[in-house]
Amino acid sequence: MNYMNIESKEDTIIALATPSGVGAISVIRLSGPKSFDAIDQVFSGGIKLKNAKSHTIHYGNIIGNNEILDDVLVSVFREPNSYTGEDSVEISSHGSPIIVEKIISLLIRNSKIRAAEPGEFTKRAFLNNRLDLAQAEAVADLISSRTTTSLRGARNQLNGLLSSKVGELRKKMIDISSFIELELDFAEEDIELIKKKDLICRINDIIDQISNLLSTYSFGKIIRDGMNVVIVGEPNVGKSSILNYLLKESRAIVSSIPGTTRDTIREEISIEGILFKLYDTAGIRTAGEDIEKEGVERSRKAAKNADLILFIGDIDLGFSSVVENELHDLNPSAKVIKVLNKIDLGLENEFLGDFRVSAKTGDGMMHLIKGLKKRVLGESAYSEKDAIITNVRHYNCLRRAKESLIKAIETAREKLSGEFIVSDLRAAEFAFAEIIGEVTPEDILNNIFSKFCIGK
Amino acid sequence: MNYMNIESKEDTIIALATPSGVGAISVIRLSGPKSFDAIDQVFSGGIKLKNAKSHTIHYGNIIGNNEILDDVLVSVFREPNSYTGEDSVEISSHGSPIIVEKIISLLIRNSKIRAAEPGEFTKRAFLNNRLDLAQAEAVADLISSRTTTSLRGARNQLNGLLSSKVGELRKKMIDISSFIELELDFAEEDIELIKKKDLICRINDIIDQISNLLSTYSFGKIIRDGMNVVIVGEPNVGKSSILNYLLKESRAIVSSIPGTTRDTIREEISIEGILFKLYDTAGIRTAGEDIEKEGVERSRKAAKNADLILFIGDIDLGFSSVVENELHDLNPSAKVIKVLNKIDLGLENEFLGDFRVSAKTGDGMMHLIKGLKKRVLGESAYSEKDAIITNVRHYNCLRRAKESLIKAIETAREKLSGEFIVSDLRAAEFAFAEIIGEVTPEDILNNIFSKFCIGK
Repeated sequence: MNYMNIESKEDTIIALATPSGVGAISVIRLSGPKSFDAIDQVFSGGIKLKNAKSHTIHYGNIIGNNEILDDVLVSVFREPNSYTGEDSVEISSHGSPIIVEKIISLLIRNSKIRAAEPGEFTKRAFLNNRLDLAQAEAVADLISSRTTTSLRGARNQLNGLLSSKVGELRKKMIDISSFIELELDFAEEDIELIKKKDLICRINDIIDQISNLLSTYSFGKIIRDGMNVVIVGEPNVGKSSILNYLLKESRAIVSSIPGTTRDTIREEISIEGILFKLYDTAGIRTAGEDIEKEGVERSRKAAKNADLILFIGDIDLGFSSVVENELHDLNPSAKVIKVLNKIDLGLENEFLGDFRVSAKTGDGMMHLIKGLKKRVLGESAYSEKDAIITNVRHYNCLRRAKESLIKAIETAREKLSGEFIVSDLRAAEFAFAEIIGEVTPEDILNNIFSKFCIGK
Repeated sequence: MNYMNIESKEDTIIALATPSGVGAISVIRLSGPKSFDAIDQVFSGGIKLKNAKSHTIHYGNIIGNNEILDDVLVSVFREPNSYTGEDSVEISSHGSPIIVEKIISLLIRNSKIRAAEPGEFTKRAFLNNRLDLAQAEAVADLISSRTTTSLRGARNQLNGLLSSKVGELRKKMIDISSFIELELDFAEEDIELIKKKDLICRINDIIDQISNLLSTYSFGKIIRDGMNVVIVGEPNVGKSSILNYLLKESRAIVSSIPGTTRDTIREEISIEGILFKLYDTAGIRTAGEDIEKEGVERSRKAAKNADLILFIGDIDLGFSSVVENELHDLNPSAKVIKVLNKIDLGLENEFLGDFRVSAKTGDGMMHLIKGLKKRVLGESAYSEKDAIITNVRHYNCLRRAKESLIKAIETAREKLSGEFIVSDLRAAEFAFAEIIGEVTPEDILNNIFSKFCIGK
């Protein structure tokens, strides 16, 4: 581990670890070498906590200015057996924002400890080898998960599914490098042809596995962040009716998010654990009046960023070819699902849709809902026991590794010295090490942890 | 204790104890005889928690449907050494609402435990003699405290300041009753005159002490709930400027509360630990147009409920006698502080105000702010070591006790049998017992605890 700096070992940090607000209890966390000294200065219980055993809980009062601030339970954790790997205490106080603020400022004032930066506890856990970087990132994903599926994805990553896959492939690269280096040590001549074939075969195997991992990203991204769904169509085909039906029928409505100026998320729903962010649009066709232009501009932006477009037509007029052409121009890669609405009107027609529904009677709507997730994810080969890529940083590291390995094969084919092959393999291995944080530059680390909440 | 019912001892209850929302950790609390059985069914760690020592912490996984739901720390508390006095566990999970919901529903589904009612943990603490009723009420006040002073008031009550004062006076009543009963046992005749004088003197002493307690209520109520301040005056005297100055200068702005239809709290500030709820008014004078009428009606309501009225005049026109008369009609008991604004204009004038200020230059404003609290509370004899009454229930119990004691004195003066005096003393003692919850009817108890948050 390259990032153990003296500062982080010397400082003792403090923060509220539970959500802020009013509740039965709040938990304040301290970590660092002065944790016990700091708490003992303000805690009055039956025992000095610096003498307490790890993983024990102690009742007493927090005293400031000779008055009882609160009666609390203090949990004692001794390094290395704590979340951070350092000496650590957790103060369980009454769940009042004022009490929390008073206890934290008392401790900061009394002892030379400081307020924790966002993610600093988890960063220390990482620096102290309690977690690798991919696992640390999973902690943030876990906390912010909003659906069962995103939770499970983060959980698997925290359990080390990705890390062990990365470790396994990395070991294979190291084995190949060692093998080549051994050859280089013992022989001046180039590696034998048969061995080179074997070498290329083994590198190709790793490339295949990386490709498989990379292919999980389109799914993993949806698991983690949800899917942007834009509902488009001519006026009066029933876009809002369909949106409302989806909102009503999906059992777990996650939330309604107020719009920003950049894009207006109307509603979020969860269908079988996948978060769908539904954007209702005024339509994407050019509007005459100024007041409509902004809505149209917003709809176009939403369509551009869509992972999925629900293209609504009705049984009377079918699907507008003008809308369809414009959609194709705006976002050629988005999956488009055609939904023919108003089948309750019973008109004979030749229009083909992926789904035929009536938002009025509900006919076909459950089919649409059940079909949505399946349509979106395709016949994904993903199993819950497989590692998946949910994070663009990991995705980019894997792509770099793959490129280096492709270069290694080219180098081998060009019959260059084994040293060059080893150099390419090392570059790939380096990219792998970056995923789990062994060689990750400090600024990338800081960027990762700054996105955590304070107290984590 | 009269309220120990079998149901409360048999059920095991569960609830989120920390504020809901996203954070580093959340704490789920279980209490009741099945706490260890329930957690052991879903917890996979190094140890069965039913074998764990009290006040120890155990790391492991919560397993549901053969998958890891979360890795958690479980704290074990054995009866009677827990908050509730029962066997109890606290599960410290990652701070995600989905994880919390999953763990709670898993435990409810797997074991015969149920979601806790609001305040049920504290109710059990009360039923199991961990707290008396006045202390239990202080827990709710403590959590909802929004200023240092209200916090301190709740803290003192939780520490038992009120309970021990109540106990002390109650013991005096019991002593007197016992004394009279002893007399009754040994003599058929009435109590001697000299003893009756002594008796009346002793009862009067208790009445005096109750009166002192009752007199703390006007202050105690403000400590606990804050003070309603209405700012009134003619248009253009500078009401909004003064409000804005107060908001800017009071260091701890507590919050801005959105208005309800019934009354519009504009802003809340804390001055030296006292919460001031400031209502800016459109003025209380009759308005012509409909749109103004609602504002006027609201202002009148605010003025009626005001503890304090800031009556603003300016150096040009002084204080409107129309407003003053209307104020007196609306709320004759409210304290009115006259503030003469715009002294920066430097006009000679004969108008007298309690404070002379310029919200424009700030002249006199700090004097107003510092004077506010002092003016409001008067020369309160309150010391932080004294018991004070902050709760209307306690206030009413004390009043009933006082009335019974006054009746006891009358009875004694009327030379009625000692039995009648004892009966009056018992009534007073009963009212005292109700404060600490020894004889409090079940419906009153339920009413008290239903106002708690869930998880407390």
